[in-house]
Amino acid sequence: MTQYKIPVLPGDGIGPEIIAEGRKVIDAAGERFGFDVEWIEYPHGADHYLETGELISEETLKELSGYPDIYLGSIGDPRIAPGVLEKGILLTARFYFDEYVNLRPIKLLDGVWTPLKDKTSKDIDFVVVRENTEDFYVGIGGRAKKGASKDLLEVKRTLYSAKFGLDIETDSEEIGYQIGLISKEGTKRVIEYAFDLAENRKKHVSSVDKANVLSDIYGFWREEFNAISAKHPGVTTDFNFVDAITMWFVKNPEWFDVVVTPNMFGDIITDLGAMIQGGLGLAPGGNINPEGTSMFEPIHGSAPKYKGQNKVNPIATIWAGAMLIEQLGEKEAADTIVNAIQKNILDSKVKTYDMGGKSTTSDVGDDIARIIKGE
Amino acid sequence: MTQYKIPVLPGDGIGPEIIAEGRKVIDAAGERFGFDVEWIEYPHGADHYLETGELISEETLKELSGYPDIYLGSIGDPRIAPGVLEKGILLTARFYFDEYVNLRPIKLLDGVWTPLKDKTSKDIDFVVVRENTEDFYVGIGGRAKKGASKDLLEVKRTLYSAKFGLDIETDSEEIGYQIGLISKEGTKRVIEYAFDLAENRKKHVSSVDKANVLSDIYGFWREEFNAISAKHPGVTTDFNFVDAITMWFVKNPEWFDVVVTPNMFGDIITDLGAMIQGGLGLAPGGNINPEGTSMFEPIHGSAPKYKGQNKVNPIATIWAGAMLIEQLGEKEAADTIVNAIQKNILDSKVKTYDMGGKSTTSDVGDDIARIIKGE
Ligand SMILES: CC(C)[C@H](C(=O)O)[C@@H](O)C(=O)O
Ligand SMILES: CC(C)[C@H](C(=O)O)[C@@H](O)C(=O)O
Repeated sequence: MTQYKIPVLPGDGIGPEIIAEGRKVIDAAGERFGFDVEWIEYPHGADHYLETGELISEETLKELSGYPDIYLGSIGDPRIAPGVLEKGILLTARFYFDEYVNLRPIKLLDGVWTPLKDKTSKDIDFVVVRENTEDFYVGIGGRAKKGASKDLLEVKRTLYSAKFGLDIETDSEEIGYQIGLISKEGTKRVIEYAFDLAENRKKHVSSVDKANVLSDIYGFWREEFNAISAKHPGVTTDFNFVDAITMWFVKNPEWFDVVVTPNMFGDIITDLGAMIQGGLGLAPGGNINPEGTSMFEPIHGSAPKYKGQNKVNPIATIWAGAMLIEQLGEKEAADTIVNAIQKNILDSKVKTYDMGGKSTTSDVGDDIARIIKGE
Repeated sequence: MTQYKIPVLPGDGIGPEIIAEGRKVIDAAGERFGFDVEWIEYPHGADHYLETGELISEETLKELSGYPDIYLGSIGDPRIAPGVLEKGILLTARFYFDEYVNLRPIKLLDGVWTPLKDKTSKDIDFVVVRENTEDFYVGIGGRAKKGASKDLLEVKRTLYSAKFGLDIETDSEEIGYQIGLISKEGTKRVIEYAFDLAENRKKHVSSVDKANVLSDIYGFWREEFNAISAKHPGVTTDFNFVDAITMWFVKNPEWFDVVVTPNMFGDIITDLGAMIQGGLGLAPGGNINPEGTSMFEPIHGSAPKYKGQNKVNPIATIWAGAMLIEQLGEKEAADTIVNAIQKNILDSKVKTYDMGGKSTTSDVGDDIARIIKGE
C-alpha cells in the first residue's frame, strides 16, 4: 500500500465543507487503487489570523515545502480587509513555493449548462497556463504626493506636458502607482511548460498579451515566446491581445488548445473560462512547481454567505483533488475521479442547487465516492 | 440651417469604407433635422506614415482641438509593428485632447444574435465608463539588466528572497517592467461622470478593480469611488474584481446599469461587452472630453484582410456617428439614427455577412439613410 502525506488547508467560509468532500473522494480512490493518505491539517485562514495575528509563518511554509502537494480550500473573510488574507496566505504560498504555473483546465463536462449558445463539450476543452509568480502580482507600488516622489510626478508631467507643450497642474495631485515586472527566466519557464503541454495535446499554443500598449513588459514576453516557439516547429501558435481573447472565449472557444498568459491577464481570462465551463462550482486549479511543492484548489472563493449550510457544489474541489493525485503519479485514480464526476453529472440526480438540483455538498461527495468504489 | 464642421480621420484598412457610410447617414439625418455638415478630411494612418514618416503632428492636433468632435475610422496596419500607429495616433489623440471618458454603450438591439443563452435586449443594456488617459496606458516602462537598474532588481530580490531567506540568483536575469499610475483628479472626474450618468439612468454604479492584489493603485481608486459615492445617496453601488465581472457580463448582464473602470480593465471588459451585444460590427465608442474635443469611433480595428471589399458591417461606425451628433446637441437626430439601425436590423433584409446577410457595406449605409429620410 502506497502511503501519502498530504497537508490540507481548509481555510475560510465554505472551505472546510468542500475540502471534506475532496478528502472523502481521494480516500475512496485510494481504497480502489491501493494507496492511503494521511491528511495533515493546518488551521490557517481568518479565524487563526484573528486569534493569533498570524497569517502564515515562515516556519510553517518551510515545513509545508517538505511535501510535494498541498490541498487548499478557500481563503477570504468579510471581517478582514480585501487582500489581507489573499495576499498574506494564498499569494505568499504561491510565491514561497515558486509555483510558477497556474494550470486551469477549461473543460465543459457533458450535461453541464454553459451560458454559451450552440457550444458543447466538444467545443470547450482547452487549458490555460497562467504565469503565477510575477507580472503585476509582485506587490510593488505606492502613493506619491508632490515632493515625496518627484520622479513619478516628473514622469507624468513629461507625458502630458512636455511632449505637447501643455501646462498640467500637478501641485494638488496625489498619485497611486503599481509596477509590474517579468523576468527572462520567469517568462521562459512558464512558456516552455505550455509548449511541452501542447506537444501532448493538439499542438497549438495561444499567447496572450497587450504588447500594443503595455509594450515594455509584454514586448519582452513576446520575444521570449517567439524564441521558445522556434524550438517547437511542430506546434502552431497565435498571438491574442487580452481584450480580443475575451471575445473568442465566448464566440469560438473551440479555437483553443493551450493558452499561455502573464499572471494578471490570466487571472481575468480564467474566471471567464470558469464561467463558460459551467461556473465556479466546476472550476479547479493547480499552482504548480514541477520540481517542488504544488498546491491545488477550487478557483472559487470562500462564499461566506453559504458557510455551514452544506449547500455549495464540491465538484471544483474534488476535481482539484484529482489534479493533485495525478501530480503524485496516480494517473489512473485521477482519471477515475474525473470520470466519476462526469457520471454523477450525467446519470445521477444528486446535484447541488447551482446545477439545478436539491442535494447537499456532502450528498454529492458521497455520490462521487460511491461511483468510484463501484458500489 | 445649422452648420457643423467635423474633422474626419478615416484611417486604415476598412476605415474609409465604414466612415463613408457613417457620413452618409449623418448627412441624411442633417437633411431631415435641418443641419449641414462640412467634413474636413485628414489623411493620418499607415499610408501617410509610410509616405511622410509622420504619425500625427502637434500642429495637426492643435488644429483639431479647435473642433468639438472628431469622427474616426480605424487605425492599424500589418506593415507596421503593433502599437506604433495605435500609440502614435489613437492614444496620442486620446491623451492630447484629454478625453478622459471612454463611453461604451453595451446594448443588444432587437433581432441581433448574441452568443449568450436566454438573454434578450431587455437583459443587455448598460454603459461602461472607461477611464481613458491614465493607468497602465501612460506608457512608462522599460527593461533592466543587472547593474543597469539596481533598484528594480533590488525590489525583486527583496520580494523573493529577503522575506523568506531564499537565495534567488538574479545575475543572469533580464527584466521587463511597466508602471501604471492614476491621479486623484483623473480618477475623480471619471467616477463623477459615471455617477452623473447613473442619476439619469437606473441609479446604479458598479466599480471595477483588483484592489485585493494591485492594492496600491486600485486601493486609491476605491477611496475616490467611496468619496464620490457618498455624495450620491440616491445611487446604489457595488464593487467587482475584474476577474469576477467577466463572469457576470456573461451570466447576469441584466445586473448592470453604469460600470466605471480604470483604463486597462476597461479595455478588456468592453471587448467582452461588444461580443455580448452581437460582436464588433455593432459596438460604438466615444472618447469624451465634456469641455473639449471628443472623438467617436467603432471599437473594432482596421480589419486589413477585408479592405476594399465593401463587405464589413458599418453599423458600429454609424452608431458612433449618432453618439457624435448627440454630443453636438442633435439629440433627436441621434435617436433617429439609432432607431433607423434598429429598423434596418428588424425589418430589412439588407445585412452584412456577420449578421447572416449578403449585402455590402454601402447597401447597409444606403438602407439606414433611406429609413431616416422616410423614403
Ligand atoms: C484571491 C485572488 C488573490 C486570486 C488571484 O487574483 O490570483 C484569485 O482570483 C485566483 O485567480 O486564484
Ligand atoms: C487599439 C488599442 C490601442 C485600443 C486600446 O487598447 O485602447 C483599443 O483596443 C480600444 O479599446 O480602443
